[in-house]
Amino acid sequence: MNRINELFGIKYPIIQGGMIWCSGWELASAVSNAGGLGLIGSGSMYPDVLRAQIRKCKNATYKPFGVNIPLLYPDIEEHVNIIIEEGVKIVFTSAGSPKKYTAKFQSHGIKVVHVIANKKFALKCVEAGVDAIVAEGFEAGGHNGAEEITTMCLVPMIADAIDIPLIAAGGIGSGKAMLAAMVLGADGVQIGSRFIASEECSAHINFKNKVVDADEGATDLTLKEVTPVRLMKNKFYDKIQDAYSNNASKDELKQLLGKGRAKKGMFEGDLDEGELEVGQVSAMINTIIPVADIISEIVQEFDVEKSKISTL
Amino acid sequence: MNRINELFGIKYPIIQGGMIWCSGWELASAVSNAGGLGLIGSGSMYPDVLRAQIRKCKNATYKPFGVNIPLLYPDIEEHVNIIIEEGVKIVFTSAGSPKKYTAKFQSHGIKVVHVIANKKFALKCVEAGVDAIVAEGFEAGGHNGAEEITTMCLVPMIADAIDIPLIAAGGIGSGKAMLAAMVLGADGVQIGSRFIASEECSAHINFKNKVVDADEGATDLTLKEVTPVRLMKNKFYDKIQDAYSNNASKDELKQLLGKGRAKKGMFEGDLDEGELEVGQVSAMINTIIPVADIISEIVQEFDVEKSKISTL
Repeated sequence: MNRINELFGIKYPIIQGGMIWCSGWELASAVSNAGGLGLIGSGSMYPDVLRAQIRKCKNATYKPFGVNIPLLYPDIEEHVNIIIEEGVKIVFTSAGSPKKYTAKFQSHGIKVVHVIANKKFALKCVEAGVDAIVAEGFEAGGHNGAEEITTMCLVPMIADAIDIPLIAAGGIGSGKAMLAAMVLGADGVQIGSRFIASEECSAHINFKNKVVDADEGATDLTLKEVTPVRLMKNKFYDKIQDAYSNNASKDELKQLLGKGRAKKGMFEGDLDEGELEVGQVSAMINTIIPVADIISEIVQEFDVEKSKISTL
Repeated sequence: MNRINELFGIKYPIIQGGMIWCSGWELASAVSNAGGLGLIGSGSMYPDVLRAQIRKCKNATYKPFGVNIPLLYPDIEEHVNIIIEEGVKIVFTSAGSPKKYTAKFQSHGIKVVHVIANKKFALKCVEAGVDAIVAEGFEAGGHNGAEEITTMCLVPMIADAIDIPLIAAGGIGSGKAMLAAMVLGADGVQIGSRFIASEECSAHINFKNKVVDADEGATDLTLKEVTPVRLMKNKFYDKIQDAYSNNASKDELKQLLGKGRAKKGMFEGDLDEGELEVGQVSAMINTIIPVADIISEIVQEFDVEKSKISTL
């Protein structure tokens, strides 16, 4: 029995990453209904929106689903309380200390998973008593670790360091990559970018199309002084590069980033001025299809590749 | 039959990366004698040294071995001629156009493999008629591609784009990682860092010990304006960071790098002022052992992991 399937009560050890502006109840419930674990990405939601999204998700699936919360969210206490009040059973936390809310959530019967990008934090998670860890490599979209450790190097290192269930993230959008991650020591995978190019994703169609059109080199990990983030190269990205050329200070970079660019790009479809967060694996994503098809493609490829292993 | 084993006439599809200052005839012949493919790293050798190294390697093994040449090497024509004169049968080229010498080498019965870090160059290699390609990810030590594509993303993308044999590099130092790379679509692997921590490697013992001591975050891809290189953090690296803080120009960075730092660090063991090129996988390397033991550990782990796949 797979430890991730067992922990969450799911069929396939495929977790859909909780992405701001991209993962509302429609995406999360579709993933859960297809046998994976869907996550509502609360990082872009006001408290009342989050509550409504959770309720809609409960109406859309009888299967387990979860909520992802970045712990640096300003309304974090309210989010925590809503999650508990609404009876959510699984929470993925990131961008903060796993010690802060793990015990509280668990006292309400909630499974807690924390996202890390290095061994130091993985060990802190174990100490904090989390139920599982997501190890996210450099190639992943969105916010990212300062050490820039890739999935290939991070996953076996974390698998050696911890005994609790391990979910690999970063660069995974196919059954082949899923199998590779599990060979490296993961019990399951978290997939983000691939689900952006799904029918159920709440991202603007312009952004979905841009992900599908992306080729190699379409993304870069930038704004490292502010907070490292992998995003697509566009006009806004060019402005960042210009700022670097002009030796911009951290404050100037923050000012350039401003507020609301992620919403503008990913949700409103402004491909020039918006911040478009996606992983390197976007170069391999070529279709916008229903979630159920994405998951069945991944599972089928996983099985085919598994059966070919003996010939290696 | 594995295509890489067949191409080179070797037992295991394990190629030892040709690393400056680290891979002379002792390392190359030890790898070839153990069933892999050893490569003499000519990038740090004067022509007469290269000729002597090739002759010593021929005396030390009856098995196939090769020479790696960075095509930007100043004495490149002389190197090319020596390789042909000495009857070397396998050449790995990098850092330049695959069109330049591939046909010439092949007209002398030499197999040519070119190292790339993106799809654009992989397609150029196919056009140039190379016999195989090494796809090297962002996590690899030493000089690296500008797109920063990781092994997890690069290998399946290149495998989809080409039909000729494919060797994965970057982040591979174990049987587990080797199997993962082959699941991603590689026919074989090129391993660098792991062989630095071998008895036969020509690196200074100080550098070998530093590789063994390395933990996560010990390396960084830096000097991107000059030519991107992954190296270990040390006093010299701190000076680079200081230069960046002071908005150093490309020329100032070049001046700081100067000449001879790689030799000073890796060959002479000056851990403060030397340039120490190694991959992220150094965090997982903990022993300095004979090459034969490294290869047998990798092959055994590969087989064990392969046999466990059916339980996934």
